[in-house]
Amino acid sequence: MRKYNFYPGPSTIPKEVLDRYKKELYEFEDSGASFMELSHRSSIVLDAYKRITNKIKDLFGVGDDYHVLLLPGGAIGMTAAIPMNLLRGHKRVAYAVTGHWGKLAFDQAKKYCEAVSCCDTTTAETGCTIIPDPQTWQIPDDCAYVHYTDNETIHGVEYPAPPKLEGQLLVVDQSSSIFSRPYDVSNIGLVYACLQKNLGPSGLAVVVVRKDLCGQALPITPNIWDFALQASHDSMVNTIPTLQVRMLELMLDWIVDRGGLTAIGETNKSKAAKLYNFIDENDFYSNNIDPNCRSSMNVPFILANPELDGKFVTEAGKRGLIGLRGHRVVGGMRASIYNSMPVGGVDSLVEFMHDFATVNG
Amino acid sequence: MRKYNFYPGPSTIPKEVLDRYKKELYEFEDSGASFMELSHRSSIVLDAYKRITNKIKDLFGVGDDYHVLLLPGGAIGMTAAIPMNLLRGHKRVAYAVTGHWGKLAFDQAKKYCEAVSCCDTTTAETGCTIIPDPQTWQIPDDCAYVHYTDNETIHGVEYPAPPKLEGQLLVVDQSSSIFSRPYDVSNIGLVYACLQKNLGPSGLAVVVVRKDLCGQALPITPNIWDFALQASHDSMVNTIPTLQVRMLELMLDWIVDRGGLTAIGETNKSKAAKLYNFIDENDFYSNNIDPNCRSSMNVPFILANPELDGKFVTEAGKRGLIGLRGHRVVGGMRASIYNSMPVGGVDSLVEFMHDFATVNG
Repeated sequence: MRKYNFYPGPSTIPKEVLDRYKKELYEFEDSGASFMELSHRSSIVLDAYKRITNKIKDLFGVGDDYHVLLLPGGAIGMTAAIPMNLLRGHKRVAYAVTGHWGKLAFDQAKKYCEAVSCCDTTTAETGCTIIPDPQTWQIPDDCAYVHYTDNETIHGVEYPAPPKLEGQLLVVDQSSSIFSRPYDVSNIGLVYACLQKNLGPSGLAVVVVRKDLCGQALPITPNIWDFALQASHDSMVNTIPTLQVRMLELMLDWIVDRGGLTAIGETNKSKAAKLYNFIDENDFYSNNIDPNCRSSMNVPFILANPELDGKFVTEAGKRGLIGLRGHRVVGGMRASIYNSMPVGGVDSLVEFMHDFATVNG
Repeated sequence: MRKYNFYPGPSTIPKEVLDRYKKELYEFEDSGASFMELSHRSSIVLDAYKRITNKIKDLFGVGDDYHVLLLPGGAIGMTAAIPMNLLRGHKRVAYAVTGHWGKLAFDQAKKYCEAVSCCDTTTAETGCTIIPDPQTWQIPDDCAYVHYTDNETIHGVEYPAPPKLEGQLLVVDQSSSIFSRPYDVSNIGLVYACLQKNLGPSGLAVVVVRKDLCGQALPITPNIWDFALQASHDSMVNTIPTLQVRMLELMLDWIVDRGGLTAIGETNKSKAAKLYNFIDENDFYSNNIDPNCRSSMNVPFILANPELDGKFVTEAGKRGLIGLRGHRVVGGMRASIYNSMPVGGVDSLVEFMHDFATVNG
């Protein structure tokens, strides 16, 4: 029996998407084979690729001045590929570090250039509970770009809106927030995200990048991560994971079928509010993130008595709720409630949390 | 209706594997979710990873002096990752170039070191129809390794046995030949292969590497391709494509269920012989590869009248045979007959080729 799956990624996939996938498991349309068995050079796969890039452009509201690429190595791969591609003669880049993943991206960039942190809550007294006002960030001169992590999956910290920084090129990791709400990319040079939260199974990174930024990759850039080269080859310099290509298309269709980003965003906001309200009103649970930047995708919380963590996870499992244990970096619990988590899953979780607190509080 | 699928990769997957995969599409064992929806840090995924690495070691007959890694970027990614990791203070590497993929690996290595070709049939008068005797290869002093491509997927050229080179470290691309027959790796430092020929859907590279060669990656190596780092993290420095992990395990089980590499190798030999014998005996078709190094995985052939190529492909499709068009580099036709291609598929192809030649010859 399928359970409500709160894993942070890989994560739950809508039943409707699995249903469609199942129908074509042995044969995609009249091709004679499953989509995953078809050559990446076949017209069927190339057509799907083109539909996907157009759908992604539509959802972001960007035009033909952006490339949409699907690249191997996931978001962590991109933390190396981005400085390789976007230095454009600059020597320096800036990272706003507001959690684990921003720190990782920052550290990886140091391999390729002078990377500086323009803010860093991982070393601050507050810990990763706030997002410092972008107007206070210390950005050195002549940075190729300023990188930020839209949603920190582990800490549950999310930017309320893209930072407004005059004269800076913005690069954003949207791994755990892509297409969770409408997003203004008009000031953003590059958006990247792995698939395994809102876009399907793990195995690819989506990169949306302004065309004029491409074409100056460092000589050490592997071919498969050269943005300009991949753009001119429909992301098929390497053999694209065709299975993920089809799943990604099904996920994008599912988003559109749900009414698009405005409708999805409203649902996500109400799911998150339900959970935060319950946590705030119940002394047994707590979440110490600044309410202005609480994530609507990952809701970490701790129990008043951490000795009950194991029991909480076990009893949640019996109630059909899995994947709730928090990341080892922060401990406690975490409910990842991406687009694919139904409202009923959040309701069940709140009900269980209530019951557990009543018995154990 | 499923057809016989001769695509070179992504390629056909055994019906038995798809059947098993279908059974667990909504829930893997009693986990409450599909395997692809489970965290890569869950014990279910980690256990599968360990089973897989042991199965791969068993099939190669190697012990604990080798790491087995599953890395993003496929085989093309590895053409960059290998020099990054294996230079070990050397400045030079040698590549035996016997076709398109060896040339690509050679060119990629040039980004990271002095790469020299110790033989190169892509520029030779013979073209890529032979494999020069390894004893004649011009290998400079002090090479970190000598790289060869066991099977050239496009040209249909395959090493009859691993080259014996005294005092050299061998690195082999087995993308289109891995586990197609027993293979002696006792003199080999690193074997790599993409999944999409004999091991499932595209999206990962298998790397089997001697442990003592790891730990000296170049500073510019992205974390996800640092062999020592990945080895110490069970290949989960990045989020592994969990879907491919499970499909890989099912493919390895399928190989074992078929009787292992000796049995698989016999079947492959007889499938290939059937096709080559027919081609050699029929004036309408030809294959000009030296019979000593004809591939048992990819059988390219040309029609006496190339104007009939389009008709051949169309009529084959009507007979339930797809993916036969040759690579644009060499033209003509190509039948990829990996492990998963049943004997019946080769029989049907030969029958069709016979009929087509009779009508059009």
